[in-house]
Amino acid sequence: MMYDTIPTARPATPLLDSIDQPSQLKVLNTAQLLQLADELRLYLLYAAGQSGGHFGANLGVVELTIALHHALDTPKDRLVWDVGHQAYAHKVLTGRREALPTIRSKDGLAAFPTREESAFDTFGVGHSSTSISAALGMALALRYQKDDRRVACVVGDGAMTAGMAFEAMNDAVQHKADVLVVLNDNDMSISGSVGGFAKHLGALWKKGQSVYLSDNGEVSIQPHPKWAFNPRVNSNDSAENLFHAIGFEYFGPIDGHNLEELTRILALLKDRKGPRLLHVYTTKGKGFIPAEADPIGYHAISKLSSNIINTVKKPDESPPLKPQKYADVFGQFLCDQAALDDRLLAITPAMCEGSGMVQFASQYPERFFDVAIAEQHAITLAAGMACEGLKPVVAIYSTFLQRGYDQLIHDVALQNLDVTFGIDRAGLVGEDGPTHAGAYDYAYMRTIPHLILMAPKDENECRQMLHTAYQYPGPAAVRYPRGTGPGSHIATEFTTLEIGKAEILAQHHVDASQQIALLAFGSMVTPALKAAEQLASPQLGVTVVNMRFVKPLDQQLLVRLSSQVSAFVTIEEHAIMGGAGSAVNESLHEQRILKPVLNLGLPDSFLHQATHPQMLAECGLNADGITRDVQQFMKSLADIA
Amino acid sequence: MMYDTIPTARPATPLLDSIDQPSQLKVLNTAQLLQLADELRLYLLYAAGQSGGHFGANLGVVELTIALHHALDTPKDRLVWDVGHQAYAHKVLTGRREALPTIRSKDGLAAFPTREESAFDTFGVGHSSTSISAALGMALALRYQKDDRRVACVVGDGAMTAGMAFEAMNDAVQHKADVLVVLNDNDMSISGSVGGFAKHLGALWKKGQSVYLSDNGEVSIQPHPKWAFNPRVNSNDSAENLFHAIGFEYFGPIDGHNLEELTRILALLKDRKGPRLLHVYTTKGKGFIPAEADPIGYHAISKLSSNIINTVKKPDESPPLKPQKYADVFGQFLCDQAALDDRLLAITPAMCEGSGMVQFASQYPERFFDVAIAEQHAITLAAGMACEGLKPVVAIYSTFLQRGYDQLIHDVALQNLDVTFGIDRAGLVGEDGPTHAGAYDYAYMRTIPHLILMAPKDENECRQMLHTAYQYPGPAAVRYPRGTGPGSHIATEFTTLEIGKAEILAQHHVDASQQIALLAFGSMVTPALKAAEQLASPQLGVTVVNMRFVKPLDQQLLVRLSSQVSAFVTIEEHAIMGGAGSAVNESLHEQRILKPVLNLGLPDSFLHQATHPQMLAECGLNADGITRDVQQFMKSLADIA
Repeated sequence: MMYDTIPTARPATPLLDSIDQPSQLKVLNTAQLLQLADELRLYLLYAAGQSGGHFGANLGVVELTIALHHALDTPKDRLVWDVGHQAYAHKVLTGRREALPTIRSKDGLAAFPTREESAFDTFGVGHSSTSISAALGMALALRYQKDDRRVACVVGDGAMTAGMAFEAMNDAVQHKADVLVVLNDNDMSISGSVGGFAKHLGALWKKGQSVYLSDNGEVSIQPHPKWAFNPRVNSNDSAENLFHAIGFEYFGPIDGHNLEELTRILALLKDRKGPRLLHVYTTKGKGFIPAEADPIGYHAISKLSSNIINTVKKPDESPPLKPQKYADVFGQFLCDQAALDDRLLAITPAMCEGSGMVQFASQYPERFFDVAIAEQHAITLAAGMACEGLKPVVAIYSTFLQRGYDQLIHDVALQNLDVTFGIDRAGLVGEDGPTHAGAYDYAYMRTIPHLILMAPKDENECRQMLHTAYQYPGPAAVRYPRGTGPGSHIATEFTTLEIGKAEILAQHHVDASQQIALLAFGSMVTPALKAAEQLASPQLGVTVVNMRFVKPLDQQLLVRLSSQVSAFVTIEEHAIMGGAGSAVNESLHEQRILKPVLNLGLPDSFLHQATHPQMLAECGLNADGITRDVQQFMKSLADIA
Repeated sequence: MMYDTIPTARPATPLLDSIDQPSQLKVLNTAQLLQLADELRLYLLYAAGQSGGHFGANLGVVELTIALHHALDTPKDRLVWDVGHQAYAHKVLTGRREALPTIRSKDGLAAFPTREESAFDTFGVGHSSTSISAALGMALALRYQKDDRRVACVVGDGAMTAGMAFEAMNDAVQHKADVLVVLNDNDMSISGSVGGFAKHLGALWKKGQSVYLSDNGEVSIQPHPKWAFNPRVNSNDSAENLFHAIGFEYFGPIDGHNLEELTRILALLKDRKGPRLLHVYTTKGKGFIPAEADPIGYHAISKLSSNIINTVKKPDESPPLKPQKYADVFGQFLCDQAALDDRLLAITPAMCEGSGMVQFASQYPERFFDVAIAEQHAITLAAGMACEGLKPVVAIYSTFLQRGYDQLIHDVALQNLDVTFGIDRAGLVGEDGPTHAGAYDYAYMRTIPHLILMAPKDENECRQMLHTAYQYPGPAAVRYPRGTGPGSHIATEFTTLEIGKAEILAQHHVDASQQIALLAFGSMVTPALKAAEQLASPQLGVTVVNMRFVKPLDQQLLVRLSSQVSAFVTIEEHAIMGGAGSAVNESLHEQRILKPVLNLGLPDSFLHQATHPQMLAECGLNADGITRDVQQFMKSLADIA
């Protein structure tokens, strides 16, 4: 059934409503399974309107999800979803139907499968390309225990470009492991698949043949069945099979919306031995006409506006200027800097839209490199470009830079190469939850020699820091949060900031007998300014510093301030352990400055999803939280004295 | 020519002596090139005896190195070596002939190609599998600049299992980049190649066919030429070609010791367009009879004993007990723990020998998993195993854990899975130089929630910490140095250490009016004890603490000590920035303890290779250095007071 609108009222889904666990699927006949698919799709549409979130991918796997749970005995059998943004249907069929509209909100369902949420979520996911490794681990562990549970994973074509998936396939063959990989090929990761692998999948289609498994277990080559043949451009002429080459048994490609064929072949494949792969072709947004037409636009959607529950804007606060998305600030910087400097090349690992690079990509196609989901490669590619005198800029999310960490150290920093990093989604990320938090980058980056690291207080400073990082002749990074800044006038002209220099933004009650300094990093400057207003009094003078640089720190300023204040407070949207505050502590000790320091930041735990402001409030990282913590700190100092 | 001994005197190599730069190869005829190969091989043998170091791989690429420099116009053309332990011949031919015996020693040649050493070293390497990415970066940068320099890289079959290489190939096809990949297939990375990819290479051989490029540019399939056919076990039946499948032009396999054919085909391939791969088969240790017979044993060799220049052992210091290699302590722990607990499985990314796992692998083959060079996969594989109630132990070098960093956070720690990490080569690593330093693990690990992290003072404590980590029901890591410990009695029975508890090892002059505490981590406990003896006096009492845990820290002890001492000194074999000392600073501030702290550790720079003791001395991380720095610190405090 095709739908063209998102229902705003709970649709009638009588059959779906009767399914509380997937074992109930076993008794449904084909007609009932087809009805279930229709109802499930309609319900997903409704729920997406309520909650926002990933969308197209979920509509694309309705039939596949039903067929997998129909074939396997979950949760006894292990089913692992790669990335997990396509696991909404899985959540619905495994006892979480009515909770689905709460997905991605505080105390609601997590954005991705998580082990603590359900026994059916066998492996927590979020980042791409982990599923084959995890499934292989399970398969080897089960074999060792002589346990005959089955193991399957579902991985998208986009996720297959990450080297980790290849490493896992290589190893699965080594161990002749009993693992079923379902390759969900929708010819598009997030921005459209790129590279030789995608072309190879295209070639397997173009061949017009399918590896068919008959009911008696015979394997044969058959012409493509009737379901829509989807010719791709740029297919390689080769019809050699990469999966087969590496030692996997390969089946398909088959139509991932043909529920009958899916249930038939999965029933056969689930008990076949060895590493085997079923190549399934699906359509993102399947069944919802607007999404099929614009799969990138419908990768994720916002809640329907009538359903907005949370709002960040308090009625009495209107920002002086319209806040802008940091990703857009980055995108504009790229275009403007590229216009001034021919040496600028820009690299993204499959996050063109998310990183704000759409305009750049269209304006400078020959200088834009989307390398697919391949963070390791993205960084060393940049290193190679820098060796030839060019000035690559890598756009990457903080959480994904973790995947390129060795390359950052070994290929870029060690060689002191001129690579600029625009690190987006740094700090808490709200609804995506702990898998996507960018909470560790200060710690893992500031320990690296040669690298300089900045965090902007607002949109304009982000632009100027990116420019400064770009001008700096070595590795330099700017990390900025998800979403919008506080609102600031963005200067068209570029200004290079002085390396390692902070700025004093406010000094309240400089004549008070007791003085403290709030040393704020990046996104914490705005709440620190507000907290300072709340804290300052004729008895307590408060200086607010926008630290700007996590590395190198402004040691001179710390020395100067230390003669004026009796205590420091560091504030950052990052784990306290090893973070920017810890850099301040080191620096003060190095200067033999002995002052109490309060380190404010994220606690030493993984935080569940909620809205970004909710999460910050929980951590005390808003104006009121900072005010409260500093007051307590000052009281504890008074008690000691 | 075959050799069976390593020459101890400089052999006569008249033709080689005349080559000071590779452009001189162009005028040599075939007979001369063959003579050069003989002389080069003999010289490598001689130099290896002088310096120790990687060996087999270098003998295997003598002909290939000559042929590449003969074909290309280096350094104008870009030649990138993967890993770089096979680049000795390259160093000899590019002006560093006489310096080769200094390789891996202080102020000598670096172990690997480095950009600062020579213009011919176009990209610094050390870790595996970066070369295709780097070469692609160069190729794209050159294309963008309309520069027609050629780009080639040489990558071993072992390095091809790392996902990063796959990511780069995928992207090279995407960009139709003009890059020549020479696959140096010696059927063995370090411990022997494993996995589907190795089997695939075997299948390409077994096929008995070679993709031949004739002088007029015609491509044809030819039977294998006469050179030795090397049948492999476990070859897949498939003769499909993975490289071709992903979109590379594929040539070979050819005999990598047939210099004439190599020079012929490289002359053709260097100017062919697009991503192309030449599959070359070589023999590790080629031409040196003992090494051909035992390639694993001859992967790297020690210096000939008559040539030992540096010695760590001072004549007046004989350790109380024979020091043992930490890798062996780990190996013994594995065997002993496995005997007690069926749930133990052990994983290595291609470092079976280096990690001390040979005995375990032979004793428990069904519980031993060598996943090839695939650090990302290794860690998520462990996570999957832990999901099934088993207790995986991952053996990994500190520097290579950087490659699995995201998996450590996202797949293990976030899910609080019970995985134990034995982190070898932590701290400085001596001759291998900065690429292999394990100088950042405290910083990048201690910021991760759920994880506990220990560092042992000696061999026995390493064993007990590994046991403690194993017993701990969440993610836990023990990091220990390369080489031997200080010598200690290793208790057979296991003792579980209390989590987060340090131990006081020495208290000198407890009645002195001024007291300090040395808080030492891991390998720094031994020099701290010695430094304390040198520092202590009736005026200065010194307490030495073996901190044991970097996370969680022993905060109670810090509180207790703070009432007794006027200052703390932290000592670690790790970058000061974000390291264990920085954790102490954080903790003291959190407890509102205001004492001067001196943080000793590695400076914020990448350190050149030397012996491990030389490097420690340079950083002031031996007893004398610590004594000197603490004295200076005490003096600075006195000056302030």
